[in-house]
Amino acid sequence: MDYRDTPHYSTRPTLRVDLQQIRANYDALKAKVGTAKIGASVKADAYGLGAVPVGKALYGAGCRIFFVATAGEGKLLRDGLGPNAAIYVLNGPAPRDRGVLLGAKLKPVINSIEQARFWASVSAEVNDPPYTAIHIDTGMNRLGLTLDEVTELSRDKKLWNALTPEWVMSHLACAGDAGNPMNKIQLDRFRKAAAQFPLTPLSLANTAGIYLGKPYHFQMVRPGIGLYGGVATTKPGQEVGAPAATLLAPILQVRYIQKGETVGYNGTFTAPRDMRIAVVGAGYADGIPVSESNHGYAILHDERVPIIGRVSMDLTIIDATNAKLSVEVGGVVAFRGNQLEIEAKSAHTLNYELLVRLGQRCRRDYWKKKDVST
Amino acid sequence: MDYRDTPHYSTRPTLRVDLQQIRANYDALKAKVGTAKIGASVKADAYGLGAVPVGKALYGAGCRIFFVATAGEGKLLRDGLGPNAAIYVLNGPAPRDRGVLLGAKLKPVINSIEQARFWASVSAEVNDPPYTAIHIDTGMNRLGLTLDEVTELSRDKKLWNALTPEWVMSHLACAGDAGNPMNKIQLDRFRKAAAQFPLTPLSLANTAGIYLGKPYHFQMVRPGIGLYGGVATTKPGQEVGAPAATLLAPILQVRYIQKGETVGYNGTFTAPRDMRIAVVGAGYADGIPVSESNHGYAILHDERVPIIGRVSMDLTIIDATNAKLSVEVGGVVAFRGNQLEIEAKSAHTLNYELLVRLGQRCRRDYWKKKDVST
Repeated sequence: MDYRDTPHYSTRPTLRVDLQQIRANYDALKAKVGTAKIGASVKADAYGLGAVPVGKALYGAGCRIFFVATAGEGKLLRDGLGPNAAIYVLNGPAPRDRGVLLGAKLKPVINSIEQARFWASVSAEVNDPPYTAIHIDTGMNRLGLTLDEVTELSRDKKLWNALTPEWVMSHLACAGDAGNPMNKIQLDRFRKAAAQFPLTPLSLANTAGIYLGKPYHFQMVRPGIGLYGGVATTKPGQEVGAPAATLLAPILQVRYIQKGETVGYNGTFTAPRDMRIAVVGAGYADGIPVSESNHGYAILHDERVPIIGRVSMDLTIIDATNAKLSVEVGGVVAFRGNQLEIEAKSAHTLNYELLVRLGQRCRRDYWKKKDVST
Repeated sequence: MDYRDTPHYSTRPTLRVDLQQIRANYDALKAKVGTAKIGASVKADAYGLGAVPVGKALYGAGCRIFFVATAGEGKLLRDGLGPNAAIYVLNGPAPRDRGVLLGAKLKPVINSIEQARFWASVSAEVNDPPYTAIHIDTGMNRLGLTLDEVTELSRDKKLWNALTPEWVMSHLACAGDAGNPMNKIQLDRFRKAAAQFPLTPLSLANTAGIYLGKPYHFQMVRPGIGLYGGVATTKPGQEVGAPAATLLAPILQVRYIQKGETVGYNGTFTAPRDMRIAVVGAGYADGIPVSESNHGYAILHDERVPIIGRVSMDLTIIDATNAKLSVEVGGVVAFRGNQLEIEAKSAHTLNYELLVRLGQRCRRDYWKKKDVST
């Protein structure tokens, strides 16, 4: 995707999402896992990119299983995708969410014995309650049944049957680090725990888990970041597709400043020479973190241009002194895109966090077909 | 406000915004500036708290002047506040925003000669074009006319008249640091530049600028963070009201782990002893930054409880081992509130950034009247 195909100039930024690329990333992951199903993680508004348009694109590519974090997210996705998608709610069921879960036919992931008992009681009260997935904690110490609770559940046939589980799943804590012994430990614990439910299909791998190889795939994988073109693993050779999201910020003003002048809040940048700078219309409210002040980069005509001064809420200032091509009001600079991982490193954070912060305020521009000219 | 008055338990977080407190903060600032008007900064969705409900509360307190960043934000606010509010768009006019600016009667802030010429041409084409404000850069080197451009504009009566400016304004770069000589430099430059427009009222101060004293107030001040109870200045004695926003995250699971076990992604936390931990339903997609991993705090029954492990997208894990009162599923922990500044320091960022990141996904709970029991 070419960010230079600028949207007609507004003072607000645009988040461009290449849905065709997301489909391509889905297809690439699908080819990698053979017969295992893909359950797409579209939680947190599809990592900030828009759960409904992203969900529809994946649905169009053949995906029928989706994971969200909360019932509210599930409801929005159901309204967008219609009745034939299976939508699982990772945070599980809670009293306040009962009506939404039932009304939108969302499938709660059961993370604890409390959630199991609660959902069993709900299921007893209604016709055709949604099925569930059972989530086992195998060492992350986040959500999930403990191994003792798994045994308890396996012995309580009444409770198990009331939940009508379709999947038994767990989540890898260290899959991004292929050499971490924790991966094998979790795999072994998962196999052992799941053996108590021999008839139920299994799911363990996130994007990074897919790259750990076939033993981690089971009957379903649950990629998130890999669908969006983010790198999930330190293992060399992760064949991610191209990144799917770019934030385009308009150049609102070009200034020429003299050596010694300061820039932005608290004057944290002092011009070491006469400079040409550009003020662009995106700031930390749009997902350019404050930690990129005097530190990160934007892309202007394929060149990296440094952020100078402190990032503001709505504005960021760049050094365009050495930019070779035109720097003019109405042009755009790009953030993220294929710089996502580089910028995450520079901002001392995760590519996931940079992605999910994008696009709360901006116009969305969804590309459904690859532009033949690029 | 007492965060323990928990919303009925859901797995998603709630952002509680105390509108009565925002009104009280407005009143306190108003008392401080005497006859100067207050133009409320409600850009970036009122710093993440909801521009329309916050705008309505301020309107109810008597505020009639509002500042947003983009035309899109202005349109939403116009729809919420009706025709009698003056709404200024800080990023200025651009071709794509023309229809929205005119349709919603938004007043563009003119930041450059390009914007001046563009808006003059728009104004010539329509009846009753919205008035404007002229923004001068006095040393921040962000948006605003240069001092040379100010002189150019002052000599071009036709251009000036076409813009029908109601205000001449500038913005302080270092007001949070009361002792910074830049404040006086900007004040002097502003006075000198504005003297070329002797009939037009003036505006310079943001929240921190209000605390620099009467010479900085002119005919309008433009507070943002101070309305929301955030601290804007290092000057002792900023009489901010109480903070107005608290993120409440439900406890989804309580776990007991053994010494030596690791927690969360990449096992970045190893339990130094047997521990009781709680998994809460808010993560970096909800505004708990990754930089608070193993670092920040939540509030549980008025006690600070440490964040352990890496903050996840939808979940955060806390150490509840030493919590004195109940730690149970369905309870809540609080983030921000009166811990905003402490947490910003701990996360190596600004209180502004922590505020604006809150509440993109959560339920909103707007308090209109002070609960008499608290």
